[in-house]
Amino acid sequence: MQRGPTLIHRFLLPALTLGLTTAPAACDATAQDAPRRDIAIAIHGGAGTISRGDLTPEAEAAYRGKLEEALRAGYAILERGGSSLDAVVAAVRILEDSPLFNAGKGAVFTSEGTNELDAAIMDGRTLAAGAVAGVKRVKNPITLARAVMERSPHVMMIGAGAEAFAAEQGIELVDPEYFFTQHRWDALQRAKAQEAGKPVSEPKGPQAFTPDDRKYGTVGAVALDRHGNLAAATSTGGMTNKRFGRVGDAPIIGAGTYANNESCAVSATGHGEFFIRNVVAHEICALVQYGGLSLREAADRVVMQKLVAQGGEGGVIAIDRNGEIAMPFNSEGMYRGSIDRDGRIFVGIYRE
Amino acid sequence: MQRGPTLIHRFLLPALTLGLTTAPAACDATAQDAPRRDIAIAIHGGAGTISRGDLTPEAEAAYRGKLEEALRAGYAILERGGSSLDAVVAAVRILEDSPLFNAGKGAVFTSEGTNELDAAIMDGRTLAAGAVAGVKRVKNPITLARAVMERSPHVMMIGAGAEAFAAEQGIELVDPEYFFTQHRWDALQRAKAQEAGKPVSEPKGPQAFTPDDRKYGTVGAVALDRHGNLAAATSTGGMTNKRFGRVGDAPIIGAGTYANNESCAVSATGHGEFFIRNVVAHEICALVQYGGLSLREAADRVVMQKLVAQGGEGGVIAIDRNGEIAMPFNSEGMYRGSIDRDGRIFVGIYRE
Repeated sequence: MQRGPTLIHRFLLPALTLGLTTAPAACDATAQDAPRRDIAIAIHGGAGTISRGDLTPEAEAAYRGKLEEALRAGYAILERGGSSLDAVVAAVRILEDSPLFNAGKGAVFTSEGTNELDAAIMDGRTLAAGAVAGVKRVKNPITLARAVMERSPHVMMIGAGAEAFAAEQGIELVDPEYFFTQHRWDALQRAKAQEAGKPVSEPKGPQAFTPDDRKYGTVGAVALDRHGNLAAATSTGGMTNKRFGRVGDAPIIGAGTYANNESCAVSATGHGEFFIRNVVAHEICALVQYGGLSLREAADRVVMQKLVAQGGEGGVIAIDRNGEIAMPFNSEGMYRGSIDRDGRIFVGIYRE
Repeated sequence: MQRGPTLIHRFLLPALTLGLTTAPAACDATAQDAPRRDIAIAIHGGAGTISRGDLTPEAEAAYRGKLEEALRAGYAILERGGSSLDAVVAAVRILEDSPLFNAGKGAVFTSEGTNELDAAIMDGRTLAAGAVAGVKRVKNPITLARAVMERSPHVMMIGAGAEAFAAEQGIELVDPEYFFTQHRWDALQRAKAQEAGKPVSEPKGPQAFTPDDRKYGTVGAVALDRHGNLAAATSTGGMTNKRFGRVGDAPIIGAGTYANNESCAVSATGHGEFFIRNVVAHEICALVQYGGLSLREAADRVVMQKLVAQGGEGGVIAIDRNGEIAMPFNSEGMYRGSIDRDGRIFVGIYRE
């Protein structure tokens, strides 16, 4: 069954005053008159069982506001001729710094009660890439991933070795306490109680945060800049109550993160194990490059057919070298947003 | 420039008595009469600047003997109807246990003087996969990778978390001292001296082991079993003097290790960063599945063209669902071997 993308209609946010000087056109009338910019960006903030009524109106507004803030920050960089790499990092850092999303501040807890963060970035122009996994003291893992890409001979660094490199490079380190949030801690306690077979009372009524057991939290961004360069970035705190040492798809180049100017850029969110086994991000780009599919067809085939057949829940954001955007998800909802080639902004949570 | 595969001619080993009851035909005459078995296996033991004259005759015989032993162990399993998963694990364990190869016993040292081991395995029938990175006390990392695949809900586990899982599962742990070998220690001292700008005397004349600064050590195996199932396995100690925490392509599903019954199975060895950025193993399989190339064409395009253009040294072993084998390498040499569908054995080190 084809779901999701075919049902997604543009949701045009009322123009919010965010103090940015480069607000893209936010209504259809303006967009039709506006010249094509050949720049575009898409972001996500996790996928899962996110239904209308799960969030208080204030919480929903907060999620939408933060997604729009991240989008506009990345887009502003693209508009002034900046690189897609800078744009995706700017967008992801905003989501990492927000406790609303499972990345950076607000990361979920492992079964040991620790926060272990993973991130990756890839430059579609050079195929340079950087990834970190299992870091516990890095405020913005995406910035460390970029440093691994640009200032080390390596692509992937993990654990204490990655943190030693961060310290050398002057990347901001924080006390692990920085990552503590009450709602993530409560989610771990619920998960542990459930594991122990104890009765677990789900939070009742609309919440200020999506319960973690209902979503696969990851944040990510993909962008096309004025120079025709694609980039992808992903950052995550993993899964609530995951075994310590478990690594998902986010930092795996080709699985959760991939960019190649010859095909597309993809950032994924979902049940990471399925995304690794299916090499999801690279598979979508291979279907575009070798399979002759459009970006939307390729993303749908992987997310809405292959993953659905296997029971692999989640979604992706993808952009091709023409600035086409696809954001399919097979879960009930996915925090997501985009500013397309026509400058039109879209922010969504549910199927709409 | 196309090199390597076009120059590879079969090198038929004299039949060695290895105490195995299931010796495949070891000469062309016998092979021509033998029925096709629809089973096949290929292995590698690292690629790099390995030239004739680098090794003493005794050392060369030891390398060839161990490669053949690993091949025959895997092949024996396939011959009696066993699974390709069992076959690749059996072959890789033999190479892990040998100090000749940079995996398990004989792993190279990090810049900290530790041994950090990575491994991955993938089942082409189910796309199940398991990977471990940065483990220091696991005697056979490939066996732990298989346990992650079969007995955990995860695909990838790293560091202390992976070792805690190993202990729970009764996987054999050893004192880190087990991995010490004098020749690897000496190689680290040479690498450190070189890094410090001190004069370094390369070992003179033929050696008992390939100097580590001349090769990218990894071991791996791919196989097709009688049930039509493909599998791939890779194990490594990484790069001599690597920063601790660095992870190469071996444990990255899609990069150093990949198997899919619909296309092929690949295990890679080489400068890992290039193999991650190019998602080498999955790229080869995508070129077969979507690009319409034969296995040999696909493997050549990636290893002999794309990687060569980028300066990415190394090679792969690959097998498709028809049992075709390709083993291209763009380095001077690659320890490798295969037993093909006709039961013919081949073991090689240099271009021949």
